[in-house]
Amino acid sequence: MKTNDFATIAQQYRVIFFDAYGVIKNAHGLIDGVADTFQFLREHQIEFFVLTNDASRGPAELANAYHKRGLTAIDAGKIISSGMLAREYLLYKVKQGTLAFLGTQASAHYIEAIGLKTISIKDVDLSDSEEISALVLLDDEGFDWNNDINKAINLLRRRNIPVIVANTDERYPVSQDHVAIAIGAVADMIERVVGKTFIRFGKPDSQMFHFAYEHMLQTVHVRKDQILMVGDTLTTDIIGGNKFGIDTMLVLSGNTQPEKARLLIRTTGIIPNFICNSIALR
Amino acid sequence: MKTNDFATIAQQYRVIFFDAYGVIKNAHGLIDGVADTFQFLREHQIEFFVLTNDASRGPAELANAYHKRGLTAIDAGKIISSGMLAREYLLYKVKQGTLAFLGTQASAHYIEAIGLKTISIKDVDLSDSEEISALVLLDDEGFDWNNDINKAINLLRRRNIPVIVANTDERYPVSQDHVAIAIGAVADMIERVVGKTFIRFGKPDSQMFHFAYEHMLQTVHVRKDQILMVGDTLTTDIIGGNKFGIDTMLVLSGNTQPEKARLLIRTTGIIPNFICNSIALR
Amino acid sequence: MKTNDFATIAQQYRVIFFDAYGVIKNAHGLIDGVADTFQFLREHQIEFFVLTNDASRGPAELANAYHKRGLTAIDAGKIISSGMLAREYLLYKVKQGTLAFLGTQASAHYIEAIGLKTISIKDVDLSDSEEISALVLLDDEGFDWNNDINKAINLLRRRNIPVIVANTDERYPVSQDHVAIAIGAVADMIERVVGKTFIRFGKPDSQMFHFAYEHMLQTVHVRKDQILMVGDTLTTDIIGGNKFGIDTMLVLSGNTQPEKARLLIRTTGIIPNFICNSIALR
Amino acid sequence: MKTNDFATIAQQYRVIFFDAYGVIKNAHGLIDGVADTFQFLREHQIEFFVLTNDASRGPAELANAYHKRGLTAIDAGKIISSGMLAREYLLYKVKQGTLAFLGTQASAHYIEAIGLKTISIKDVDLSDSEEISALVLLDDEGFDWNNDINKAINLLRRRNIPVIVANTDERYPVSQDHVAIAIGAVADMIERVVGKTFIRFGKPDSQMFHFAYEHMLQTVHVRKDQILMVGDTLTTDIIGGNKFGIDTMLVLSGNTQPEKARLLIRTTGIIPNFICNSIALR
Repeated sequence: MKTNDFATIAQQYRVIFFDAYGVIKNAHGLIDGVADTFQFLREHQIEFFVLTNDASRGPAELANAYHKRGLTAIDAGKIISSGMLAREYLLYKVKQGTLAFLGTQASAHYIEAIGLKTISIKDVDLSDSEEISALVLLDDEGFDWNNDINKAINLLRRRNIPVIVANTDERYPVSQDHVAIAIGAVADMIERVVGKTFIRFGKPDSQMFHFAYEHMLQTVHVRKDQILMVGDTLTTDIIGGNKFGIDTMLVLSGNTQPEKARLLIRTTGIIPNFICNSIALR
Repeated sequence: MKTNDFATIAQQYRVIFFDAYGVIKNAHGLIDGVADTFQFLREHQIEFFVLTNDASRGPAELANAYHKRGLTAIDAGKIISSGMLAREYLLYKVKQGTLAFLGTQASAHYIEAIGLKTISIKDVDLSDSEEISALVLLDDEGFDWNNDINKAINLLRRRNIPVIVANTDERYPVSQDHVAIAIGAVADMIERVVGKTFIRFGKPDSQMFHFAYEHMLQTVHVRKDQILMVGDTLTTDIIGGNKFGIDTMLVLSGNTQPEKARLLIRTTGIIPNFICNSIALR
Repeated sequence: MKTNDFATIAQQYRVIFFDAYGVIKNAHGLIDGVADTFQFLREHQIEFFVLTNDASRGPAELANAYHKRGLTAIDAGKIISSGMLAREYLLYKVKQGTLAFLGTQASAHYIEAIGLKTISIKDVDLSDSEEISALVLLDDEGFDWNNDINKAINLLRRRNIPVIVANTDERYPVSQDHVAIAIGAVADMIERVVGKTFIRFGKPDSQMFHFAYEHMLQTVHVRKDQILMVGDTLTTDIIGGNKFGIDTMLVLSGNTQPEKARLLIRTTGIIPNFICNSIALR
Repeated sequence: MKTNDFATIAQQYRVIFFDAYGVIKNAHGLIDGVADTFQFLREHQIEFFVLTNDASRGPAELANAYHKRGLTAIDAGKIISSGMLAREYLLYKVKQGTLAFLGTQASAHYIEAIGLKTISIKDVDLSDSEEISALVLLDDEGFDWNNDINKAINLLRRRNIPVIVANTDERYPVSQDHVAIAIGAVADMIERVVGKTFIRFGKPDSQMFHFAYEHMLQTVHVRKDQILMVGDTLTTDIIGGNKFGIDTMLVLSGNTQPEKARLLIRTTGIIPNFICNSIALR
């Protein structure tokens, strides 16, 4: 399949939004050649941001993970996560009480930084739950699925509180050969069982792109037609970028297998402006 | 709300199909007065069968649970479970290999009785799974949700095998105040994550009613218009019975709250022929 | 792709269930060679039935269409249509009043034969609709979509009556290059807008297979493992046959393109026992 | 049910976003007392905008409809419609070619103002459709449903082009007793039949709120906690406002019946900050 050259395309834009998983890193670590790519962007004064469906940690911890692998170009200010949107929602709309959460303590830590009190669902006493003002689904780890998912359901039967899903992904790769269910799929199951409407943050929802755009405007002033979204997944990165009104590039280094890309574009009707093998320079 | 008298209605039929949970028993044990009801049926020579979405045990064990509570009228031959349909499917369509299952050993025991080999998903070795010929979802207990649900997903990525859901219920009551997620909801989550089409057994699917009807014809010869389906849930018992072409009665002793029954019938368009408070005689 | 030989497979069974469209006929008429196939079946004393999602006409009219094209082997007694199931439902469950319908007069004619009165939705007076006891969706033709779909919706807001969908197909081919929306897709739209639960008849629902099986037992006595279902669509013919517990054959003469068959089987997990190019003898 | 007083609540905010239908107007014309309400807002220097899922006309024509009924406070600059978002998308992402549309000529007129060429689906020649660069679903009127919906489907089988749904509503009231299917429900049907992913604009999607907010910032500078969203529908106005992070008020003058409001809030988990009978001053 004929693909575009990343560097040639990149130079037509002033800002690039990158998805993280499948674009910059994968189950083995950094994708080959990405360090050179970020060097190239710096030399050509192309600004960038990383848009990631991740609420397991705050931006500082996410950036630190890149640094440890030798990619120093991505600092906390460059990262926009679905967890940041969830946190903003809680700041504006919940304000008080205690947040029950499904996730690790690390994922709750970032939420607590805005002054809200949190409690892991496993520590909730259902018979004394009047203080709980919202339920937040942060991460698929850090709780006992056998007990705590049912506990979340029974909490929602007792208390009519908003439920915030801070990562809408259904699954994620844990190695070359294995995937794991992400908290977004657990959220779908709970939502259907309780029959309520949850509030979700993360690509493909356009709020993710608006948040990134507004965040970006604090440092860079660009129009939408000067931004390119680069992602490996049609149903999140590409449809989301398209709907937001920016150009989009599908890379074949992650979720979308090269031999199936054209067929998928044809069957879904989700059409990127460009297709590249990866963001590595040739 | 004006309701019908169970005994008066019952005498118009030769056979009654009963749902189990919310009709005959609930979280506290037998529903008040049901022993008298089954005595009444016997005196009036009204035949009955229990149709239950349950694959946690075989009919003998299910009957035994009634006997222990003092209800001796319900023996194994009177019980039609979704597990029986799943077993019949496996008998006709799988025939060989090993069945991986999510559920308790007790739930697998009933399947093994037809000569198929089973293995709990927790004991499956993914790197040596060629022998596995189907995945069966039997019960929400007996496995570690954190590990084994992901293991089921990775098995389905390796092996293109049929997946059988032996109980389609999404939740069940564990006490007056608590519910738990049933294996049907777990099945929905897994199906969506892997993107495949599972085979489901249980009400409201009409196969459950056909199976019961054919099973019944071995001992009783009746026409469909001589059968009444009695259940506490519009979306399983009543719509299923209606579609199968038999008369239906909604009882208010379980899932459907008396004050909401009329509204629910109106909003869903699922219309029973009769409404009774319970199957207890007045 | 390696495929099986129809004749070789067919001889292993005593009865074959055929889907109609894409198996026996297509937009151009009869599929090449099917006349010889039915001659072959007769010579080998293999019984057959045609299972079709069609409520546009009764079996006699459907059979007549084959006769006109020179295929005389298929008479009315060989045809099982979803319209027959809808008619049986109405006979058992509605019994009286007037049936409003969406479809042609020809489609209503078959329903009227059981003694029920019908009225096209276009002739319904919404302010005088107390007589209407059910709404039946029969065919995509015979009414004015701009007016009559809204009229059906407003009827369902006034009258809490059962809604029967006599053909669940979403679309059908009208020529080599064109498809048209079938009444099943219109039913889905109306159901979602009114928020009620409709009663659907047609493959892949197992009721279609039970009905055919029971119908067949009037003339032939066979076990399920002596029956083969042959169809061109994984999501109706094959999954339906599998769930009913009979062997299944996918043919590549209709909906399923030969080059995509293996991929579709792999991604859907719907697995036929056999794959043949068509039912034509080689 | 205890409700709040609109005027008391309104004075706590600097800007109010109003839904149109069921809040300002209904099937009979303006809702009683709204003229006084807009006078009150002006006197108290409370800014307002109207957020409406409507792509049938441009803002000038929508404003004109209020003027004709005597409400002069709402001019074109106060109206944010889902059609405006669709137009912005087309401006950024389509740029060239001809837009096929389902809707009236009036609805297309507003799109043409940005320099794009349009063609009603009824005038499209499927055998010569290479020029068509997108399909836009604008309004439920202006086309022949029997022919043109199928034509749209066949166009999408030939051309892999983006499909834009400019109004996601499923239905709308045409009189006290009648509703009609809106283009959003037709879009859902077409999307399912063709199996592609469409791009939708309109509440509850947060893009509608972002667009309104950015539009508003051109004239008024306020923080999110100074804005109140007022609507009659939990599933569009209230969940959308909540997710965007602003306070919300449910009014009982439209879709949500007063006697069901509390039950609906409880069952959906969509919780407004306030409930008022209407926006009329007491």
